[in-house]
Amino acid sequence: KKLSQQVVKTDADQILVLEANIDDQSAESLAPVLDLLMDNGALDAFFSPIQMKKNRPAIKLTVMIHPADQQAMTYLILKHTATVGVRYQTMGRTIMPRHFITVATRFGDIRVKIVNYDDLEKYSPEFDDCLAAAKAHDVALNQVYLAVYQSMPESGLS
Amino acid sequence: KKLSQQVVKTDADQILVLEANIDDQSAESLAPVLDLLMDNGALDAFFSPIQMKKNRPAIKLTVMIHPADQQAMTYLILKHTATVGVRYQTMGRTIMPRHFITVATRFGDIRVKIVNYDDLEKYSPEFDDCLAAAKAHDVALNQVYLAVYQSMPESGLS
Amino acid sequence: KKLSQQVVKTDADQILVLEANIDDQSAESLAPVLDLLMDNGALDAFFSPIQMKKNRPAIKLTVMIHPADQQAMTYLILKHTATVGVRYQTMGRTIMPRHFITVATRFGDIRVKIVNYDDLEKYSPEFDDCLAAAKAHDVALNQVYLAVYQSMPESGLS
Amino acid sequence: KKLSQQVVKTDADQILVLEANIDDQSAESLAPVLDLLMDNGALDAFFSPIQMKKNRPAIKLTVMIHPADQQAMTYLILKHTATVGVRYQTMGRTIMPRHFITVATRFGDIRVKIVNYDDLEKYSPEFDDCLAAAKAHDVALNQVYLAVYQSMPESGLS
Amino acid sequence: KKLSQQVVKTDADQILVLEANIDDQSAESLAPVLDLLMDNGALDAFFSPIQMKKNRPAIKLTVMIHPADQQAMTYLILKHTATVGVRYQTMGRTIMPRHFITVATRFGDIRVKIVNYDDLEKYSPEFDDCLAAAKAHDVALNQVYLAVYQSMPESGLS
Amino acid sequence: KKLSQQVVKTDADQILVLEANIDDQSAESLAPVLDLLMDNGALDAFFSPIQMKKNRPAIKLTVMIHPADQQAMTYLILKHTATVGVRYQTMGRTIMPRHFITVATRFGDIRVKIVNYDDLEKYSPEFDDCLAAAKAHDVALNQVYLAVYQSMPESGLS
Ligand code: NI
Ligand code: NI
Ligand code: NI
Ligand code: NI
Ligand code: NI
Ligand code: NI
Ligand code: NI
Ligand code: NI
Ligand code: NI
Ligand code: NI
Ligand code: NI
Ligand code: NI
Repeated sequence: KKLSQQVVKTDADQILVLEANIDDQSAESLAPVLDLLMDNGALDAFFSPIQMKKNRPAIKLTVMIHPADQQAMTYLILKHTATVGVRYQTMGRTIMPRHFITVATRFGDIRVKIVNYDDLEKYSPEFDDCLAAAKAHDVALNQVYLAVYQSMPESGLS
Repeated sequence: KKLSQQVVKTDADQILVLEANIDDQSAESLAPVLDLLMDNGALDAFFSPIQMKKNRPAIKLTVMIHPADQQAMTYLILKHTATVGVRYQTMGRTIMPRHFITVATRFGDIRVKIVNYDDLEKYSPEFDDCLAAAKAHDVALNQVYLAVYQSMPESGLS
Repeated sequence: KKLSQQVVKTDADQILVLEANIDDQSAESLAPVLDLLMDNGALDAFFSPIQMKKNRPAIKLTVMIHPADQQAMTYLILKHTATVGVRYQTMGRTIMPRHFITVATRFGDIRVKIVNYDDLEKYSPEFDDCLAAAKAHDVALNQVYLAVYQSMPESGLS
Repeated sequence: KKLSQQVVKTDADQILVLEANIDDQSAESLAPVLDLLMDNGALDAFFSPIQMKKNRPAIKLTVMIHPADQQAMTYLILKHTATVGVRYQTMGRTIMPRHFITVATRFGDIRVKIVNYDDLEKYSPEFDDCLAAAKAHDVALNQVYLAVYQSMPESGLS
Repeated sequence: KKLSQQVVKTDADQILVLEANIDDQSAESLAPVLDLLMDNGALDAFFSPIQMKKNRPAIKLTVMIHPADQQAMTYLILKHTATVGVRYQTMGRTIMPRHFITVATRFGDIRVKIVNYDDLEKYSPEFDDCLAAAKAHDVALNQVYLAVYQSMPESGLS
Repeated sequence: KKLSQQVVKTDADQILVLEANIDDQSAESLAPVLDLLMDNGALDAFFSPIQMKKNRPAIKLTVMIHPADQQAMTYLILKHTATVGVRYQTMGRTIMPRHFITVATRFGDIRVKIVNYDDLEKYSPEFDDCLAAAKAHDVALNQVYLAVYQSMPESGLS
């Protein structure tokens, strides 16, 4: 199959990426910002280690948001971090459409996310379900994932 | 307070971000480039650790500049690093307006940057002033920062 | 179950850890060293990003070896990297005893490593077998792993 | 003051450092291990990004413990991560003796840790107290820290 | 020479940058993706260590491609990694025109890439040639590079 | 040549490695510590990015010293960083004996370090000499290195 001839049907949208370099705030005071941003509607947020001028072992904060949330999320970043500026740009995004099934395992019911793109189909046991089940039964996460895989039909997942 | 109703007044501008992946130059020869770029007008410059093809533990150089400086800064990157190409994109930037006050401490006068955005006000003792004072009095930087915080009025900073 | 009362039976040995900081060699020339050391008997070898004096974005090389190989491995590091010194220390090591089973899947036979420790039992499909099968059948690695998990008995693996 | 003539009085103890390289487990399944280890008595635990053989972007787990906890903590690491081995070594540790004071601020009472070593005295507002106060009053963490610094006496902290 | 007066003649083009954050896939299963993408026409591809929500020590995959390859490369990323979405943006690129010369050394013929930009001229011995020569003669890579440098004319390289 | 039969003559010594995890200090205030420690006799000092409990993007400080300097260097770390403890261990070290030659180039005299181990001989132009020459003649560092390589005799360096 030649790559250029694939026909794909997929969702797509535009996101806004916000960034700030942080060199004047401690790691412990910066840490709660990720959860705070996710709780306020960020699509994703993460830290990257960077090495700045004057040998500073600093952190880059990246936040992906719906463009409509720019003003509100910029406010939160400026309020809760030490940065005095936030830079931004627009990115396109290709997203695999998704739906869920529920799989019965010896550790209880676990949701499995099914995503599709062209002829691809991928499955992903819901992490939060697996973690809750692992804690409830005092087993390793891995045990729960194995149980889910073994309880899923090999084909016809949709 | 609902996030979408905030009214903010702020400065904004456009910057250009230049990037290059460096896998054919030693760390010691790459290191002076950050200062050299900052001394020639870069707004910021930093290294990020990346893992490239063929298991190369390489470095990404990122430089933020005024768009008018693109040709000159590209020249400097090509001259002083081993890269054979520089990629670039434009980003918007939200900046907190700033002004300075001077705070008298037992370690001498220290400038404090005051930045504002909507109802936010943040203070930031000038790092270079604090470092100079710490060295002059042979105390830890932390001691100087504490003295500045204790010498600042708690409110009415502007 | 109180932690301190667990009784474990396990293998243990002593290894030697060699380290060198590299700031005077390019990423592309350093990269082949990992394979070279693994091919000559290193137990493991890896790079870590570090930030050295003078703002150098450098790399720490760590190599774990059998103590009897110290002289030979030190020679290889000194020959194939730019470092002028190698530091070392001894570490103990707790190892889970392991054996293999073979699992038949629709992508062919795949070995699965079974490791034990106290009441723990973990399984790990052999990566190289899975990668070879994925390439041979032009499917994602993930598909092969799923097939292995679904072809393994849920219990009684040993 | 010549460095070698300093006389210091300090606490000291021995710790055990456990390490494992993780290349066969997802980030989301590895993440809960840090809290789990801390909750079971680890003195500290952290991840470092490493670059392993075959271009694997892997993670090194480091756990610092009381030597008496070795068997129990090794068990937890082997249970909750995919690693099949744990390496370890002993380290000495110099610790600054500590005590606490309570500082009254406009955001409520905040504990401040005071640590000493030779002629050094350092203060550290308790992070958890500050975070709780910041959330309770919907202000940035930074505001709380500033209030603590301004409510502390500049000298005679002990 | 004032920077803004430089006249440069150079190649330039547009590239597309694809990115995905990976937190639900092991390092060993992610590793082969770099080679796979390079083999299918990616201009460059690399991993960056990132720290995501819930304390996940994750990896960002970045792939630079010709814009015409977007659909095919997106398909490969979605097939061979666990991500359910790929974000993208366009970047400009300044490239130094290049040509090759061949240098005769005591380790055989080695190609040297010569690149130019304005008044700059840089040389770069072909890594693959040097590595092959180093292996063939069982010497360190460094020895081969030194031989190339000593066999190149100091000026008039073009 | 079989690896275990190599006979090597080399210098060796013992060093002390000091480490501290920093999560309660900004990057800008931590940065000057590397130079300060090097200026006070550290053999080497570097930062590593680490990911600690509670999602803290923190820094590990590592300092290598002569064992006799332990008390003085511990004092400096405790004074100039926010850490309340320093851990340490002894490591052995294999060092290549070194001497210097001076090479005349069109950019002036440059010292070249020559190191030996068994049948190995490596050369390393002194970085500080090369940087000074590059600045004095306004050329890229790379130009100076090339000039040094071309001015060195290919053999008989010692
Ligand atoms: Ni949304
Ligand atoms: Ni259950
Ligand atoms: Ni400017
Ligand atoms: Ni003063
Ligand atoms: Ni062996
Ligand atoms: Ni097959
Ligand atoms: Ni304890
Ligand atoms: Ni209150
Ligand atoms: Ni092409
Ligand atoms: Ni040859
Ligand atoms: Ni010395
Ligand atoms: Ni000169």
